[in-house]
Amino acid sequence: MIRVLVIHGPNLDRLGEREPHIYGRQSLADIDARLAEEADRLGVQLESMQSNHEGAIVDALSRAVGRFDAVVINPAAYSHYSLAIRDALAALPLVRVEVHLSNVFAREGFRQRMVTAGACSGVILGFGGESYVLALRAAVEMVRRQERNGGST
Amino acid sequence: MIRVLVIHGPNLDRLGEREPHIYGRQSLADIDARLAEEADRLGVQLESMQSNHEGAIVDALSRAVGRFDAVVINPAAYSHYSLAIRDALAALPLVRVEVHLSNVFAREGFRQRMVTAGACSGVILGFGGESYVLALRAAVEMVRRQERNGGST
Amino acid sequence: MIRVLVIHGPNLDRLGEREPHIYGRQSLADIDARLAEEADRLGVQLESMQSNHEGAIVDALSRAVGRFDAVVINPAAYSHYSLAIRDALAALPLVRVEVHLSNVFAREGFRQRMVTAGACSGVILGFGGESYVLALRAAVEMVRRQERNGGST
Amino acid sequence: MIRVLVIHGPNLDRLGEREPHIYGRQSLADIDARLAEEADRLGVQLESMQSNHEGAIVDALSRAVGRFDAVVINPAAYSHYSLAIRDALAALPLVRVEVHLSNVFAREGFRQRMVTAGACSGVILGFGGESYVLALRAAVEMVRRQERNGGST
Amino acid sequence: MIRVLVIHGPNLDRLGEREPHIYGRQSLADIDARLAEEADRLGVQLESMQSNHEGAIVDALSRAVGRFDAVVINPAAYSHYSLAIRDALAALPLVRVEVHLSNVFAREGFRQRMVTAGACSGVILGFGGESYVLALRAAVEMVRRQERNGGST
Amino acid sequence: MIRVLVIHGPNLDRLGEREPHIYGRQSLADIDARLAEEADRLGVQLESMQSNHEGAIVDALSRAVGRFDAVVINPAAYSHYSLAIRDALAALPLVRVEVHLSNVFAREGFRQRMVTAGACSGVILGFGGESYVLALRAAVEMVRRQERNGGST
Amino acid sequence: MIRVLVIHGPNLDRLGEREPHIYGRQSLADIDARLAEEADRLGVQLESMQSNHEGAIVDALSRAVGRFDAVVINPAAYSHYSLAIRDALAALPLVRVEVHLSNVFAREGFRQRMVTAGACSGVILGFGGESYVLALRAAVEMVRRQERNGGST
Amino acid sequence: MIRVLVIHGPNLDRLGEREPHIYGRQSLADIDARLAEEADRLGVQLESMQSNHEGAIVDALSRAVGRFDAVVINPAAYSHYSLAIRDALAALPLVRVEVHLSNVFAREGFRQRMVTAGACSGVILGFGGESYVLALRAAVEMVRRQERNGGST
Amino acid sequence: MIRVLVIHGPNLDRLGEREPHIYGRQSLADIDARLAEEADRLGVQLESMQSNHEGAIVDALSRAVGRFDAVVINPAAYSHYSLAIRDALAALPLVRVEVHLSNVFAREGFRQRMVTAGACSGVILGFGGESYVLALRAAVEMVRRQERNGGST
Amino acid sequence: MIRVLVIHGPNLDRLGEREPHIYGRQSLADIDARLAEEADRLGVQLESMQSNHEGAIVDALSRAVGRFDAVVINPAAYSHYSLAIRDALAALPLVRVEVHLSNVFAREGFRQRMVTAGACSGVILGFGGESYVLALRAAVEMVRRQERNGGST
Amino acid sequence: MIRVLVIHGPNLDRLGEREPHIYGRQSLADIDARLAEEADRLGVQLESMQSNHEGAIVDALSRAVGRFDAVVINPAAYSHYSLAIRDALAALPLVRVEVHLSNVFAREGFRQRMVTAGACSGVILGFGGESYVLALRAAVEMVRRQERNGGST
Amino acid sequence: MIRVLVIHGPNLDRLGEREPHIYGRQSLADIDARLAEEADRLGVQLESMQSNHEGAIVDALSRAVGRFDAVVINPAAYSHYSLAIRDALAALPLVRVEVHLSNVFAREGFRQRMVTAGACSGVILGFGGESYVLALRAAVEMVRRQERNGGST
Repeated sequence: MIRVLVIHGPNLDRLGEREPHIYGRQSLADIDARLAEEADRLGVQLESMQSNHEGAIVDALSRAVGRFDAVVINPAAYSHYSLAIRDALAALPLVRVEVHLSNVFAREGFRQRMVTAGACSGVILGFGGESYVLALRAAVEMVRRQERNGGST
Repeated sequence: MIRVLVIHGPNLDRLGEREPHIYGRQSLADIDARLAEEADRLGVQLESMQSNHEGAIVDALSRAVGRFDAVVINPAAYSHYSLAIRDALAALPLVRVEVHLSNVFAREGFRQRMVTAGACSGVILGFGGESYVLALRAAVEMVRRQERNGGST
Repeated sequence: MIRVLVIHGPNLDRLGEREPHIYGRQSLADIDARLAEEADRLGVQLESMQSNHEGAIVDALSRAVGRFDAVVINPAAYSHYSLAIRDALAALPLVRVEVHLSNVFAREGFRQRMVTAGACSGVILGFGGESYVLALRAAVEMVRRQERNGGST
Repeated sequence: MIRVLVIHGPNLDRLGEREPHIYGRQSLADIDARLAEEADRLGVQLESMQSNHEGAIVDALSRAVGRFDAVVINPAAYSHYSLAIRDALAALPLVRVEVHLSNVFAREGFRQRMVTAGACSGVILGFGGESYVLALRAAVEMVRRQERNGGST
Repeated sequence: MIRVLVIHGPNLDRLGEREPHIYGRQSLADIDARLAEEADRLGVQLESMQSNHEGAIVDALSRAVGRFDAVVINPAAYSHYSLAIRDALAALPLVRVEVHLSNVFAREGFRQRMVTAGACSGVILGFGGESYVLALRAAVEMVRRQERNGGST
Repeated sequence: MIRVLVIHGPNLDRLGEREPHIYGRQSLADIDARLAEEADRLGVQLESMQSNHEGAIVDALSRAVGRFDAVVINPAAYSHYSLAIRDALAALPLVRVEVHLSNVFAREGFRQRMVTAGACSGVILGFGGESYVLALRAAVEMVRRQERNGGST
Repeated sequence: MIRVLVIHGPNLDRLGEREPHIYGRQSLADIDARLAEEADRLGVQLESMQSNHEGAIVDALSRAVGRFDAVVINPAAYSHYSLAIRDALAALPLVRVEVHLSNVFAREGFRQRMVTAGACSGVILGFGGESYVLALRAAVEMVRRQERNGGST
Repeated sequence: MIRVLVIHGPNLDRLGEREPHIYGRQSLADIDARLAEEADRLGVQLESMQSNHEGAIVDALSRAVGRFDAVVINPAAYSHYSLAIRDALAALPLVRVEVHLSNVFAREGFRQRMVTAGACSGVILGFGGESYVLALRAAVEMVRRQERNGGST
Repeated sequence: MIRVLVIHGPNLDRLGEREPHIYGRQSLADIDARLAEEADRLGVQLESMQSNHEGAIVDALSRAVGRFDAVVINPAAYSHYSLAIRDALAALPLVRVEVHLSNVFAREGFRQRMVTAGACSGVILGFGGESYVLALRAAVEMVRRQERNGGST
Repeated sequence: MIRVLVIHGPNLDRLGEREPHIYGRQSLADIDARLAEEADRLGVQLESMQSNHEGAIVDALSRAVGRFDAVVINPAAYSHYSLAIRDALAALPLVRVEVHLSNVFAREGFRQRMVTAGACSGVILGFGGESYVLALRAAVEMVRRQERNGGST
Repeated sequence: MIRVLVIHGPNLDRLGEREPHIYGRQSLADIDARLAEEADRLGVQLESMQSNHEGAIVDALSRAVGRFDAVVINPAAYSHYSLAIRDALAALPLVRVEVHLSNVFAREGFRQRMVTAGACSGVILGFGGESYVLALRAAVEMVRRQERNGGST
Repeated sequence: MIRVLVIHGPNLDRLGEREPHIYGRQSLADIDARLAEEADRLGVQLESMQSNHEGAIVDALSRAVGRFDAVVINPAAYSHYSLAIRDALAALPLVRVEVHLSNVFAREGFRQRMVTAGACSGVILGFGGESYVLALRAAVEMVRRQERNGGST
C-alpha cells in the first residue's frame, strides 16, 4: 500500500483564522479531513504533521526514507529561504510535491524566490485547500507510474 | 456544459523529439488525446491550440471571453518575459491555470522568473504530460465551485 | 496633407471591458472615433490599427516610411521589453509619439522600465483616452514645425 | 475661473543658454510668455515660479491647496531623486502634470528613474517648450472633466 | 547537397536605409545576392527568409529539421530577450550560427545580454554583410566535418 | 487587566557577557526585572520568554491569541531573514512592537534588511535595555487607545 | 534644565489633511501641543520647528550644539536619501532620536532605505503622534543617564 | 585537558546515503569514529552532536562557554543564511573552525554566500571527512598556541 | 584679473569641531584665510561662500557665469546624490574643480558614488585643507592655459 | 604584403591536454600550423605568440603599430576582466578580431561578460580551431577593403 | 616520492612587515622554513616560489604537470578576480589546495568573492602561517589516498 | 633629500598617439621631462618607470620601502580592478598619490569603480599632464609636513 507523508509548514496551524482573504476559511483540520477522505478513495495510507520548526521538518524528511513513498509538503514561509529543507528534499529518494494554498506569484516580491521547489518533483499552487488534494493525487499517480516502470525518482 | 480552452505555447509542437531528457517522449498529439479522454470523463468540452506566436496567444485569450469558462495554458518560454500574455491573462474573467511539463525551478536561472503565473488562478508544474490533466481537473473543479457559489473569479 | 498612423498595441482591443479601474470605460472604437473627429478638426489624415503581435507592429512601422508623417503608438505591454519595436522606432525618420492610458509610474515595478520610449520623439501618459488626442495634436504640431524649418527629425 | 500653478525646477532659469543641443534655445521667459498666451486663450488664470530649491518647491506645493486647481511641474533633476517632492505631490488633491523638455528616456541612465512622476496624474515629455503648453491644456481639460463629474482627483 | 537556411530577424528588411552609420549601406537584397553567389561557389543550396515576427522565426526553426543541415540566423533585437527563439535553437539538431552585422559589444548595454547565442554552435559578429558570408562558410565546413565524422552536433 | 508577552530572540540568553561594547552589560534577567517593575507600575500582567528557536517563537506567537493583548518582541538575528516569524506576526490580531537593543542601522549591512518589522505595529531601537521599557509603555498605551475606541488593530 | 530641539521635516506642515489613512488626523499643532505638555511634565525645555528645506534642517542641526542637549527629528522623506542630514547628525555631539509617524517598513520599498537613522542614537516609529512623545521621553532619559555618568554620547 | 565540541548541522545525519557523488560514502558515525581516534591520538576530549535545528545549534554554542576550549562546526545549509548561528559564533570566546565536506565554491551560487564563516577563526573545506580531522588538529593547535601565549582569542 | 568662486557645501561650517579624525582640526575660516593668501600670491581674485542648501549652491553656480572664470567646489555630502548640482555644473562654461578634504574612496560605500564629479573639469581629494589650495592653483593654471589658447572649456 | 599578428592568451599553451571536452584535442602548434598554411594560401605574413601575462599581451599590442595591419587575438580568460587589454585594443589603429575556441555564451555566467570584445572590430567564437582560420580570413578581407577605400579603421 | 609545489601570490614577499595586525609577524622565509621542516617530516619533496605576476603564476601552474603531484597555492589578491589562474587550476590534473593566512570572510566585501577556490580540491584559511602546514598535510594525504585508489583527481 | 617614485601604468607608453581627444597630445617623455623640471624646482629626487605589467607595478611598490618617501602612481586601467596593486599600496608606509589624466567620472561606467584609490593618501584627476605635476607637489608637501610632525603616514 502506498504511504504518503503530508507536511504542513509554519503558521498553517492557524489556518482559517489567519488572513482569510488570502488563505481562505478552511482550517487545517478541514484540509486533513478532506485529505483523509481522498486517501481512502485512492486506497493509500496517509500521515499528516504540522510544525513551525524548520528543524522538525528536516527531521521528518530525514526519517521518511523507507517509511513513505511520497511526500506532499507545504513549506509555507520556509519555501523562500530554507536551504536546509531544500537539501533535505534533494536528498530524499521519494516522490516530493510542493503545495501552496495561495498563488505566491501574485503576492509580495519575497514570495517569488522559490528555494525549496527546485528540489521537488512537481509544484501545485493557488487552488486553496484543493492544492493538497491535487498534490496527493499527483503524488500517488507518480509513485504508481514508477512502480510500473520499476523505476527510480 | 463547461468549456475549456487549452493553449500550448512556443516549441511545444516539437514535443517528444525536443530534448526528451527534459520534456519526456510524449508528443503534443499524445497529450491532446489524453486530455480529450479526460474531458470526456469529466463531461466537459475541450478545445486545444498550439502557437509559437506571442500575439496569437494574446488573440486567443482575447477571444476566449464568452466562449470558454476556463483556460489551461502552457506559455513555455513566454512564461518568463511576456508581459503581453500576462496582461491578457489578468484581463480575463475566467479560471486560468498555468501548466509546465518540467519543474522550471530545477532548471536555468532565467526560467525562475515567472511573469505570467502571477496573472493566473493557479499553477501546476513538473508532472510531465500529467501536469495538463491535473490542470484540466483543477480548472473544471474551480469553475464548478464558482458556479455553486454563483461567483466571480 | 499630414498623414498620421495610430498604432494600438496588445490587449487594447479589449479596452473598456478590461480592468476599467485602471484603463477606464472607453472602448477602442470610442477612442478611434474621438481621434477621427480631432483629425478632421486638425485637417489631417488618420489611419488606425490594433495588433497583439509584436511582429505586426514592427511590420507597420517598417511600412510607414513614405506613407505617413508621424506615428502615434501605444505599445502597451511591449513598451517594457520589445527591443524589436524600439529598433523599428529608432530607424523611423518620422515624428513618433508614445502614448499610455494610465500613469505607468504609479503601477507595478516592471512597468517602469521604458524600453521603446527612448526611441520616440516624445511621450504622453496618464490622461486616459485623452492621451491619444494630446499625442495627435503634439505630433501634428511637430510635423508642421519641421515643415516650416524644412527640417529633419 | 480655473487657476493653474506652473513650477519650473532647478537650472531652468538658465534655459536657452544651457546645453541648447538638449534643451533648445527658448528662454524660460519665452516659455512663460507662450504659456500666458495659451492661458488667455483657454480662459484660465496662470501663476508661474522657478526655484532651484527642493524645499521651496515643496513649500509651493504645500501652499497650492485651495489656491489652485492644477499644477504643471517640471521638477528637472529633482524628478529622479526627490522623495520630498514626490510626497508633496502625492498629498496634493489637485490635478498634477509632470513635464520635461527633453525625452529623458533617450538620455543618461540616471534620468530614467522617475521618482516624482508616480505621484502625478499624467506626464508629458520630449516636446521642448511645447511640453508645457500640452500640459497646460491637459491639466485644464482634466479639471473641467472633474468639475463636470463633480469629482475628486 | 548541403542545405542551409538563412534567417534575417526584425528590422533587417529596412537594411541600407536604417541607421547606415551602424549597419552600413548594403540592402538585404545585396546580402542575399552575395550569399547566393557564395553558396554557388561552395556548392550548397541556400534558402533565405526575413521576418519581424518572433513566432515566425520559431516556426521556421521548428520546420527546419529534415529539410536543412544548417541554419545561419541573425535574430537582431530578439537576440537579447527571445527565450522562445533560444528554446527553438536549443531543440534543433542542426549546425546553428548566429550572425550580427555590428559589434554588439561596442553598443548599448542592453545589446550585451546574449540570450540566443548560448543555444548556437558559434557566433560571428561585427563584419557587416561579410558576417553572413563568414557564417555560411563556417556552417558548411562544420556540416562537412560532421559528415566526415558521421557525427551528431 | 492588560496582558503583554515579551519574546527575547536568539543569543539574548547570553546578554551582558556577549559583545558588551555593542549590547551593553545588562543581563537578560536585569532587563526582565526592570520590565516586571515597569509592568507593576503600569498595572499590567507580563510574561517573558527567551528562545534561540525560530519555530518556538512562531509557536509562541501562534498561541498568543486570546491569551495576550500585546507582544513586545526582539527577534534579534531573525529580524533580518525570518519570513516565518513575519508571517506569524502578520497573522496576529494584537498590538506588536519590535525592539532592538542596538541601532541596527549603524551596524553591518545585513542588519539593515528589516524582514519582521513590516509586520509589526511599531519599532523601537537603539536605547539598550530601555528599548524594552519604551516598547512596553508604547504597547500598553496602544492597547488602551484601542480599548477606548472599541477598535481593531 | 534639559533643552530639546524637535525638528519636523518636509510635508509635515500638512499633517492631518495629508493622506490621513497613513499619517492620522492629528495636525502638527496638535503634536506640538502634546509635546509641550509632556515637556512640562518632564521639566524640560522644548523648541520645535518645521521645514521643507533639507538645508534648513542641516542649519538647525549645525546651530544646535551648545544650545540643546538632545534632538528629536522626523526627517520624513529626507530619511531615505539625505546624506547631508546624515552627516549633520553624525557630527552632532548630542542625543539624537529619529521618529516616524508610520511604520516605514510596512510601506513602499524606497522607504526602507534608512539613510539618516544610522547617525542617530535611537529610532522610534509607527506609533503615530505618540512616536514623538516616546522619543522625547527616551531622549530626556538618555541625557539624564549621561549626566549621571558624566558621559559623552 | 583540551575539550572540543564538534557540531554537525542539518542533513548530516543522512551522510553516506545522501548524494554520495557530492558528500562521499562515509556515514556520520564513521566520521565520529575517525575523530574519536584522532582525539585520542592528540590527547584531547571530544564531544559530538548532530542537529537539524538552527535553534539547537545556537543553544549548543551558547552552552559551550566554560565547558569547551574549541568548536569544530559544519553548519551545512545554515552556513549560507543563519545570522542566528553567526551571532552565536561571534559571541563565543573560543576557537571556532568551520568545516565543509565538499568544496562549496565549486557548487551552486547560493552556496557561495558564506554567512557564518566570517564569525569563525578559520575555515577548512573540500576534503570530505578529512576536513573534520584537519579542523580538529587545527583547533587543538590554536588552543595550545593561545595557552602558550596566555592569550585571548 | 582671474576671478575664482569657492563653494563650501553642507556641514563644512562646522569644520574643525566635526569628526576631526576624518576632517582634521582646521576650521573653515582657516582654510579661507589660507586660500586668500594663496590667491594673493597667484594674483587672482577670490570669493568664498558656504551653504548647507543644495538650492543655494545651484543658485550660486547659476549666477557665476560672467562673474567668475573658475569654480572650486566641495559639494560634501551632495557629491553623492545631487543631480541638481550636477546639472548646474554641466551647464557652466567655466573651469570647475571638485575638492574633498578626505579620501572618499577609503570611506563608506555610499561615498564612492560620485554624482557631481563627472560634470567637473578635474577632481582633487584626500589632502585635507591643502586639497583646496591645490585646486585653486589647478583652476588658475587651467584658466590661463585656456586664455593662451583663446579657448573654450 | 599584409602582416597579421596572432595572439594566444593565457592557458592556451596547454591546448589539447586541457579540458578537451570543451576546447578540443588540437594543440596550439596544430592551430599555428593550420594558420601558417592558410596565411600562405592568402599570401599574407603571419606572426604568432602565446603568453599567460596580461602585461605581455598589452606590450605586444603596443608594439604592433606600424609592424602589423591586423591582430587576431584570443584573450581567453582575460576577455572577461582585462580593462588593460581593452584599452590597448581601443588604442590600436588596426583591424582587430577577437577569437574564442568555445561558445562562451553556453558556459559559466562569468564568461558572458565581454570586456575586450567591445574594443575589437569583430568577434568569431565557438568553431574550435577553425575560429582562428575564419578570423584570419575576415581580418585580411577587412584590411583589403580598407586599402581599396584608402580608409581608416 | 611525492612532490609538492607551493605558490605564494602577490605581496606575500612583504609578509611580516605588511599590516601585521592582519597577516601576523611571520616572514615568508619563516613560513617556507616551517614548510620545509614539515615536508621532511612527511617525507615529501617541496618547491616554493613567490610571484607578484598573475602570468608567472599561470606559467608555474602550466609547467607543474608531470613535475608535481600537488599544488598548495595562496593566490592572495588574485583569489578574488583572476579567471586566468582559475582556468590554469581547473586544467591541472593534480591535487590543488588554496590557502589564506587571514579569514577573508571576516574582511572587506571584495575579498568574499572567491574566483579561484572553485577550481581547487579544497580550501584552508584563517590559521595564519599554519594554514600552509595544514594544506601541505591535506594535499599529501589526498595524493596518498589517490595513489591507494589508483585514482584520478 | 626627498625621493619620489613615479609609476605610469598600462598603455601610457603610447600616450600622445593613443585617443588624443581623451588623453591629449603630450607624450610620456614630455610628461617625464615636465616632472623632472618640477622636481628640480622643488629640490627633490625623482625616478620614473612605466609598465604594462600589473606584477611589475606590485614589484616596484614592494621595493619602494626605504628607497622612496612618496609614490605618484597612475594605475590607468588597473585602477578599476587590480586588488593586487591595492594591497601593495595599502601595505606601503609612504605617501601615495593616485593620478589620472582624464576625468574618469565623465567616462564609461566601468571606469567609475575606483579599486586602488582607497589605498592611497589622495587622488588628483582630470588635469591632463598637469595632474602629475600637481600630484608631485602635493606628495612633496605631505612628506614635508610629516617630517615636521615627526610623523607616520
